Amino acid sequence: MNEQAGLRQCAAVTEQQAAALLRAADHILILSHMKPDGDTLGSAFALAGALRTLGKTVRVSCSDGFPARFDFLYEAFDVEHQPAFEPEFVLAADIASVALLGDENAGWRDRIDLCIDHHPSNEQYAGHLLLDAEAAATAEVVYRVIHALGVPFNRAIAAAVYTGVATDTGCFRYANTTAYTHKVAAEMLDVGIDGFSINRRMFELKTPGRVELERLVRGALEYYLDGKVALMVVTREMTCATGVSDEDMDGISSLPRQIEGVEAGVTVRQRPDDTYRISLRTGELVDASKVCARFGGGGHARAAGCTLSGTSDAVKRQLVDALREVLS
Amino acid sequence: MNEQAGLRQCAAVTEQQAAALLRAADHILILSHMKPDGDTLGSAFALAGALRTLGKTVRVSCSDGFPARFDFLYEAFDVEHQPAFEPEFVLAADIASVALLGDENAGWRDRIDLCIDHHPSNEQYAGHLLLDAEAAATAEVVYRVIHALGVPFNRAIAAAVYTGVATDTGCFRYANTTAYTHKVAAEMLDVGIDGFSINRRMFELKTPGRVELERLVRGALEYYLDGKVALMVVTREMTCATGVSDEDMDGISSLPRQIEGVEAGVTVRQRPDDTYRISLRTGELVDASKVCARFGGGGHARAAGCTLSGTSDAVKRQLVDALREVLS
Repeated sequence: MNEQAGLRQCAAVTEQQAAALLRAADHILILSHMKPDGDTLGSAFALAGALRTLGKTVRVSCSDGFPARFDFLYEAFDVEHQPAFEPEFVLAADIASVALLGDENAGWRDRIDLCIDHHPSNEQYAGHLLLDAEAAATAEVVYRVIHALGVPFNRAIAAAVYTGVATDTGCFRYANTTAYTHKVAAEMLDVGIDGFSINRRMFELKTPGRVELERLVRGALEYYLDGKVALMVVTREMTCATGVSDEDMDGISSLPRQIEGVEAGVTVRQRPDDTYRISLRTGELVDASKVCARFGGGGHARAAGCTLSGTSDAVKRQLVDALREVLS
Repeated sequence: MNEQAGLRQCAAVTEQQAAALLRAADHILILSHMKPDGDTLGSAFALAGALRTLGKTVRVSCSDGFPARFDFLYEAFDVEHQPAFEPEFVLAADIASVALLGDENAGWRDRIDLCIDHHPSNEQYAGHLLLDAEAAATAEVVYRVIHALGVPFNRAIAAAVYTGVATDTGCFRYANTTAYTHKVAAEMLDVGIDGFSINRRMFELKTPGRVELERLVRGALEYYLDGKVALMVVTREMTCATGVSDEDMDGISSLPRQIEGVEAGVTVRQRPDDTYRISLRTGELVDASKVCARFGGGGHARAAGCTLSGTSDAVKRQLVDALREVLS
């Protein structure tokens, strides 16, 4: 850990210690990361609900605002009219790095008292860190903090925890899902939440533009190396023609790897500045993070990314060449 | 209940009583329903594994054979070389009606000693019936029977139970998923099975032909009644061109209802005899089974089907007209 003058020490804490820190504060600001997902928002609103139950004054903030698809999380909170106050305590939920605070909240970077997270890459920027790198979602850790606070789970809190757990596991499908994940989900459903509606919202509903984009990208699929590599280019023309927002692009890049026999699924997305954002999803045979590292990117073993420039054909060739080396 | 001469009485039994019946038998035949899915096969192979552990001689049979996508369930069983014997006891797993036994197994219709099921529509054809109409999957009931038998869950049994529970709930997404479903899943994962691989197999992997079919049907989407109805025609040309089998069509008809604002999603599938098979999926506003009943079909409130003949345009018009009446 970096201990230069000016950098605070980061102390690891337990759920009980995190709960004690929160109990001692009255005006609490909870931060979610930029490009917010179900886990950062679910974790933040679950904590906000529990702390309110204890009589605290709480505000949740996200640099990128609160996306409409999660509006059932905000219902109990009237996010348009949250209380204004000078926070006594600042909590970061599911934020691995200060770089993810986003513009609006970057100013809090040196004032974060507690971070609750599950990313192994957490940069230990907070005064106190409650990190469980084995947890499928930060919401699993938040669930334990709420137990430690002694707050009973009402429906709003349970729906928020469930949303975090369900979204970070692809609805209990991904390899990070554990028996513990299911136990948390069971307890939340026992509170009486409508898991079906949440899942339909999170995993099923699509805009007509998204459906049309899915049609276009399927038409753009190319196969290489005897079908072991499937690659698709998502052009700016496609995204413009369908009016699909960044938020609405979720999961598009999982398509190529879904095809039988594919060991490496590559999504090449053309950006407004004519660079290409690469998303690589792999099976057991290819370490996605190693391949992307060769192009200055990174990520996990089964999902990683990088950015390339040049013509679309040159970008594809570089990627297929790199994958040929690994697969042969 | 029909008590005509010749019809056997059907006695409701508990898990403990079902276990006692099974313990008393030595040569046991377990039947799965035709067009087998993950629940009928998972239930059958979980029971087969548990009964083998108790030293029983067991055979699993399905009129339509064992589909390749479930082959991880058969590994421990060498389904090609199952023992031949005259059964002392015949068990039906997840079979609501003798009509679902299929041609090969129809001969057992009057000789089924025990049926384990979760369909409320179960026709009570078996000597003994263990029915839990609240269970998300028959595999949940099987899980309790295996506990009642006192057999510890090994990986093969746990994978089979998990497969039944996961497939019948759309991987814990559908409205039938309960806290209990998650508790069963948690216990199965605790045995050490690879839920991720099972889920990838069940919910993610697609043949290239299936991906192409998904592209074609997206191109065929039509919207009616201000976007409240989405309809797509799957022509024989599409299925022939992509070589997609019936088994591989699973889930295609869920697409139209996934679109935001759609209250009725209609899939019209052209069949070899030029009739059209209609699948209707609806939201809260439309009772799918009532609409399909008007055309001689039926099903559930949110998912139903019927068969129509005529030109494709006439079929579409009839359906849209019927939906207009309900939606206006």
